[in-house]
Amino acid sequence: MRQTVDAPITFETHPSTYRHWKLTFDADVATLGMDVREDGGLRDDYRLKLNSYDLGVDIELADAIQRIRFEHPEVRVVVITSLKERVFCAGANIFMLGGSSHGFKVNFCKFTNETRLAIEDASAHSGLKFIAALNGICAGGGYELALACDEILLVDDGSSAVSLPETPLLGVLPGTGGLTRVVDKRKVRRDRADVFSTVAEGIKGKRAVEWRLVDAVHATSRFHDEVQRRARELAAKSDRPADAHGIELRPLSPAVADDRIDYGVVDVKIDRERRLAELTVHAPDEEQPATPEAIADRGDHYWPLRAFRALDDAILRLRLNEPDIGTVVVRASGDPAGVLACDAVLSAHPEHWLVREITRFIARTLKRLDLTSRSIFALIEPGNAFAGTLFELALASDRVYMLDDPDRPNTIALSPMNRGAYRMGNGLSRLELRFLGEPDRIEAVLTHDGPIDPQEALEAGLVTFAPDDLDWDDEVRLALEARAALSPDALTGMEANLRFAGPETMETKIFGRLTAWQNWIFQRPNAVGEHGALKTYGRSGRPEFDWRRC
Amino acid sequence: MRQTVDAPITFETHPSTYRHWKLTFDADVATLGMDVREDGGLRDDYRLKLNSYDLGVDIELADAIQRIRFEHPEVRVVVITSLKERVFCAGANIFMLGGSSHGFKVNFCKFTNETRLAIEDASAHSGLKFIAALNGICAGGGYELALACDEILLVDDGSSAVSLPETPLLGVLPGTGGLTRVVDKRKVRRDRADVFSTVAEGIKGKRAVEWRLVDAVHATSRFHDEVQRRARELAAKSDRPADAHGIELRPLSPAVADDRIDYGVVDVKIDRERRLAELTVHAPDEEQPATPEAIADRGDHYWPLRAFRALDDAILRLRLNEPDIGTVVVRASGDPAGVLACDAVLSAHPEHWLVREITRFIARTLKRLDLTSRSIFALIEPGNAFAGTLFELALASDRVYMLDDPDRPNTIALSPMNRGAYRMGNGLSRLELRFLGEPDRIEAVLTHDGPIDPQEALEAGLVTFAPDDLDWDDEVRLALEARAALSPDALTGMEANLRFAGPETMETKIFGRLTAWQNWIFQRPNAVGEHGALKTYGRSGRPEFDWRRC
Repeated sequence: MRQTVDAPITFETHPSTYRHWKLTFDADVATLGMDVREDGGLRDDYRLKLNSYDLGVDIELADAIQRIRFEHPEVRVVVITSLKERVFCAGANIFMLGGSSHGFKVNFCKFTNETRLAIEDASAHSGLKFIAALNGICAGGGYELALACDEILLVDDGSSAVSLPETPLLGVLPGTGGLTRVVDKRKVRRDRADVFSTVAEGIKGKRAVEWRLVDAVHATSRFHDEVQRRARELAAKSDRPADAHGIELRPLSPAVADDRIDYGVVDVKIDRERRLAELTVHAPDEEQPATPEAIADRGDHYWPLRAFRALDDAILRLRLNEPDIGTVVVRASGDPAGVLACDAVLSAHPEHWLVREITRFIARTLKRLDLTSRSIFALIEPGNAFAGTLFELALASDRVYMLDDPDRPNTIALSPMNRGAYRMGNGLSRLELRFLGEPDRIEAVLTHDGPIDPQEALEAGLVTFAPDDLDWDDEVRLALEARAALSPDALTGMEANLRFAGPETMETKIFGRLTAWQNWIFQRPNAVGEHGALKTYGRSGRPEFDWRRC
Repeated sequence: MRQTVDAPITFETHPSTYRHWKLTFDADVATLGMDVREDGGLRDDYRLKLNSYDLGVDIELADAIQRIRFEHPEVRVVVITSLKERVFCAGANIFMLGGSSHGFKVNFCKFTNETRLAIEDASAHSGLKFIAALNGICAGGGYELALACDEILLVDDGSSAVSLPETPLLGVLPGTGGLTRVVDKRKVRRDRADVFSTVAEGIKGKRAVEWRLVDAVHATSRFHDEVQRRARELAAKSDRPADAHGIELRPLSPAVADDRIDYGVVDVKIDRERRLAELTVHAPDEEQPATPEAIADRGDHYWPLRAFRALDDAILRLRLNEPDIGTVVVRASGDPAGVLACDAVLSAHPEHWLVREITRFIARTLKRLDLTSRSIFALIEPGNAFAGTLFELALASDRVYMLDDPDRPNTIALSPMNRGAYRMGNGLSRLELRFLGEPDRIEAVLTHDGPIDPQEALEAGLVTFAPDDLDWDDEVRLALEARAALSPDALTGMEANLRFAGPETMETKIFGRLTAWQNWIFQRPNAVGEHGALKTYGRSGRPEFDWRRC
């Protein structure tokens, strides 16, 4: 599991091999105990002291939450706490950040933000409630993890405090949602949030409650019992099923070569010369279960789950391991009937716990795609399976090209799953986003009878261009070449703006406002320069700042 | 008017001295003709070719819009067009940007964004409609100016196009609201917006209409008449008064010394050693008009207008000329009764055109304060005038300190003007923002009878701290010293997040999402490095990019 700087980062893990967390179960309450191994970092140029974390720690956390959802439907409350004495979590490891490239920092923060949003997603959609049981000091990213939980309980031992010391100590932001959740989720008054975010030692005891930073404080002697009591109370309100059996998430085990990652159901070809990845999702080629019970029997081999688990893993590998790849070409291939058959079952049973989990997992994976800072072009060619759930891939793309060749029929199709099952971070369905200016088109395409051919798709606004067979090769090639010539930074910024029209939510504010400012700071000499605060932390001497405000 | 790099930038101007615009009137239609003087830039290291603009050009534009609102209440429609042949506007001058510091770029963009939002504010609140009459090529910032107008009419001459060439040509974003307004205001479909924003030559003719980029195209021979026809149509729908007399906005003429700017009604002391500005607004010391008619007679000497014009100018000077000043201490002094008397009249006549203009001007000035990247601490001491409209200054501050000395009475007061007259960019009143977590407090403070003493203010949540006279000096001094020691970049990012809890709007998205990404790009070597796109533009040779996406 230990990874060096240059080895590709992998995202699959299992509780049996966790290095940093202990996952235990007591009836309907799971406990995630953080016990970070100092020498267990992904690189060896830092030590993970005081339950500080790196990407490897967060990969395990994300895995644990995922498994609780799928493998343990009986769990109703998750208690996140520390197995160390007097310290809950010291946040992201500073030396890890200081030694990371800009791109790694950005993608590390993106992943940790997605993990925390997955906690909130489980709370909002799965009836899982999370309690942060802060049994010691809780600083920076540690408090940001707590902020993602439904309730924050802090031990009242005279010293344990919650804090966001990033600005006063490190010259950066609490960028894993911290600033946003303090004022937008916990609704801490802005002037108090200002004080809190500039006081390195943090706030403890009654003031922490009064300022809404935590929900309650309890004396050390009562802390464990109070956490358990509250866990039982929250568990009693959950709608998670009492009698369901979980399904096991087995290893994806893709075949990985230098220029290819092949999951069977998804494959990715890497063309480094063109800085292009070609990602293809394959529609199911065997009959799919027709009832939720049959889906449960099929388990993690059920095609939608298998396909989107592979897609999720592929997106993460592209993000972290292939920074030079600027454009992802997305295709869907195979028989759309199989996709639509799955959609029919998923849309008919939205309340079934496993259908809900699978649907939410697909939604989260699509959101990861929305947030992936690569240009995404969908290519729709004869033999395509861009139907229903897979058409969301086209809707998530920056552009959609559809071949219009009268000799080779080529169609797409929508399904009820395009209506609102996979809402974006801003709360809109991708059709609502697409037709912000022409909302009448949404019902028109959703109620369209049968498959949609290229001219219909073009007129309906579902695709960007529909070149004929004479133009197709050149037009697609030229578009990809032109894209590859543009500034990668300008494209990242452009896409981050054009992809999120309409309302903003706490979730989009975290990736828009907060992350964008953090990325700016991560470029500034006051943070990352030789004398910047992030570099001088832990060394003797204070940072030297260029005082100009801008 | 020509300014050198080191001379302080000033923001006052007058149509009689405009170098770049010609403002003409034809009954209820005003025409703003852009005719930028190539040699009229604020610096002499660039030439303003093809109606490209710098800050000086935009200061005149902002002045013109302001004067139309106050001095020409009979105007109902403003046509913005070009006096040059075949070119409307080529956008912000690239060589100016390339030669500017990061801080200047950021503040240049902020001002130009505020100017465009002032156009939209006039449309939303003053019954003034704006037509962009694009009689030639319209690129980048030129199109962003058009996007701020209510309608965009483009000449159909076979060559004139609208374009956002920033990403393909310069490696930066159309950051003056361009990306945001394309998808959020004009609701251009995201894939079309993607194509449009990457095609340097832009889009013209029927496709520009079909893609919602412009509202209409007209042949050259008919263009002028069609613009006039549309202007008359829009004028007929306006609720601007037909018989009102404008009031003249005369020069503020502050007394400026090295460490002081004194407007009489507002004064600013600059303490460069402490990187601190002390800004004091003085309440009126003479009786104020009791009717809208009397306000009109008083003209620009009416205290609220005089005070906020001075404040607006002071904020702009601080932003552009005093980058090292990290903290602004805000005080309000004098008799609060005068402020409350003005508030009573303003709140009783919201429909009167001049009251409306004054109220909107105050709202825009307060929004400039919200967007000023300096820490703002309000100090409330005996003899203060933090009442009603002036209490908005405290509500706009990052922290509020109120002296609690039983021997020296010290009170604040609210007025009906705190209810919602000065909404922030996110659509919330500052009380709504402050009490996002405790909305019941809003009515409680608004209906509080009489002045509010320090303990009441503290309990009501209106101030952050209320130290007694023994602690006051030390507590304020230490807070200011601690603030001055923090990373200016981290503070800028932190404040940009903590100040804008709650909903986001197109306006806040422009300053949050779009601007934050642009500022990131403005730090990236791919844009501003020696071989970056912004630096190589216009030179021979292409930019060299680091292709890593992040």
